[in-house]
Amino acid sequence: MTGPRYPDLIAKLPSSVPFVGPEVQERQRGAPFRARLGANESVFGPSPFAVAAMQDAAGQCWQYADATNYDLIHAIAARMGVRPDNIIIGEGIDGLLGYLVRLLVAPGDAVVTSDGAYPTFNYHVTGFGGTLHKVPFTSDHEDIDALMAKAHEVQAKLVYLSNPDNPMGSWHSGVRVEKALDALPDGTLLLLDEAYIEFAPTGTAPKIDADDPRVIRMRTFSKAFGMAGARVGYGIGAPDLIKSFDKVRNHFGMSRISQAGALAAFEDIAWLTDVVALVADARDRIGAIARDNGLTPLPSATNFVTIDCGRDGAFAKAVLAALIDQGVFVRMPFVSPGDRAIRVSAGRPTDLAVLERALPKALDMARG
Amino acid sequence: MTGPRYPDLIAKLPSSVPFVGPEVQERQRGAPFRARLGANESVFGPSPFAVAAMQDAAGQCWQYADATNYDLIHAIAARMGVRPDNIIIGEGIDGLLGYLVRLLVAPGDAVVTSDGAYPTFNYHVTGFGGTLHKVPFTSDHEDIDALMAKAHEVQAKLVYLSNPDNPMGSWHSGVRVEKALDALPDGTLLLLDEAYIEFAPTGTAPKIDADDPRVIRMRTFSKAFGMAGARVGYGIGAPDLIKSFDKVRNHFGMSRISQAGALAAFEDIAWLTDVVALVADARDRIGAIARDNGLTPLPSATNFVTIDCGRDGAFAKAVLAALIDQGVFVRMPFVSPGDRAIRVSAGRPTDLAVLERALPKALDMARG
Repeated sequence: MTGPRYPDLIAKLPSSVPFVGPEVQERQRGAPFRARLGANESVFGPSPFAVAAMQDAAGQCWQYADATNYDLIHAIAARMGVRPDNIIIGEGIDGLLGYLVRLLVAPGDAVVTSDGAYPTFNYHVTGFGGTLHKVPFTSDHEDIDALMAKAHEVQAKLVYLSNPDNPMGSWHSGVRVEKALDALPDGTLLLLDEAYIEFAPTGTAPKIDADDPRVIRMRTFSKAFGMAGARVGYGIGAPDLIKSFDKVRNHFGMSRISQAGALAAFEDIAWLTDVVALVADARDRIGAIARDNGLTPLPSATNFVTIDCGRDGAFAKAVLAALIDQGVFVRMPFVSPGDRAIRVSAGRPTDLAVLERALPKALDMARG
Repeated sequence: MTGPRYPDLIAKLPSSVPFVGPEVQERQRGAPFRARLGANESVFGPSPFAVAAMQDAAGQCWQYADATNYDLIHAIAARMGVRPDNIIIGEGIDGLLGYLVRLLVAPGDAVVTSDGAYPTFNYHVTGFGGTLHKVPFTSDHEDIDALMAKAHEVQAKLVYLSNPDNPMGSWHSGVRVEKALDALPDGTLLLLDEAYIEFAPTGTAPKIDADDPRVIRMRTFSKAFGMAGARVGYGIGAPDLIKSFDKVRNHFGMSRISQAGALAAFEDIAWLTDVVALVADARDRIGAIARDNGLTPLPSATNFVTIDCGRDGAFAKAVLAALIDQGVFVRMPFVSPGDRAIRVSAGRPTDLAVLERALPKALDMARG
């Protein structure tokens, strides 16, 4: 009685997971977190219209979702001034990243990203046998010149750039990103992850023709729209690439409830505006708490603030552990020199009050 | 300005999709269907407790779902008398099929299925470069002996068997499936798709040790639990295989709302019992309507009835088209000789009344 035979690529993949979720940590510590500020979720929640739409759709979920995502695609295309065939909907950006990597990356193909950028993207590249080439952040920013130079050097199939970026919260101007496109090697696709774009200053989103075959942008309902648990993301790109997703995607993979919620959330611009303002307030408050404790908040164009703890990675790790110990769920950059910092998501005043009380003690404990 | 470079495997994949959904057909015909009886959805809907749980969870969907699916896995494991490490949760059986094929099938690897069985499974196999070997149905049943013989002949990585089967609605006894396991080649995994098992007579589910490395079973919340649009399926298998899904799955891919709904649905055994009884009534009614029109309903252990239209595929196709024309969404088997039939999902009395009125006219039109 023998088990299945795995291909070499699969047999060699690690079983480690990109992220450990807060629920796992809560079970380990035997108590719920008092403030959930680690996953850049939106504690401000989804639009009430989105909640109502999802509640309405719940009773209708005996029906499979429309596999073409027609209504949502048309709403997004109309708002963005592009055609429906420029838009692909998927199960969060994570799902779309998996499909995109599968579409482009065969075993041994080169992919370029920043060292310390989104681990789930790396997970997909490794999972499909791609070879990751990483360039360091420069001054806590993704280094566009270095990314492009590396892409030329290794003839990359794909280059990952997040703008604004996670985990540092930094950003480049839209004009800078537009210029990067012209520095891209022939046949390399720029994957522009704009998960946090709604929080960024005007001018951060580059002006890119949706039909430009050199780039795909990805956006999400998980951050500003407050629907991380509903799993809806979208990509904007040239029709040939967008159409290619139909070759590999899980056609009936979208939740009908999530489709309804995303459509209603997308239409509620007032809620989005409110959330962006609340997030700006929260960033200020997190910055003040950091400074009150002698730490340095980094500028952020996202819904989180990365706080420089002023020493090395071991110290920041100790601060993080002491915060988690006190029931504050936060995370931190994985890679030096970003790992001198912890990363705190925007919270309500009550969430940030928990942080405010816990941080001094965490620093005391970390200083030992 | 050039576009991305696709690997050969991807470049050669067809852009055709496994299924065209009813919403697409409704837009084409410019009117909604009057009876939705084509996708083997459960018109009886999910448990009211599941609906309530989803409505409750909607406001909390700013949080990512627990990536480990802890609560749902533990509930299913407890009910089935297996361990949590025997269970994997995914985005419907469709999602799990994609992951499983990716885990096992490298380009050129052999996979065995029945000619006319689930197209989405074939889509995944082709998508990962596998070579499909198909054996015909025998007397409208998947032919277990032929499947096993073909698996030996081609040294298959994977053999697909659905029991009860779709699209014919036929079934084998559990004992017959148990025996098939012992006919399986060394190193071949049996994929036992039990999407419709809750509707089948006692004794249809084989007694298989969950730790048996030769088989993975898949079940779903899309059929008897009435939650097709929520996208929750599960697999039961040996821990080594189950653990392997962590190498490739979209860890944070589940909807938090769907998780909550599935857990509540799973606990509502009374609702499930009611639905199974309503489906049995509907099958009887569909059978009676078929016979009243001189057609032959095939025995079914599912939530649909496959109706032999008594002539060839072209005739059944004409009947189908005439039903769709009259607002009755139904589908049919793709492959001869199954394609002499149409397939009608269980409906409420009102849905079946629409069918009853439309069928005589459809037959008239098909007979020309």
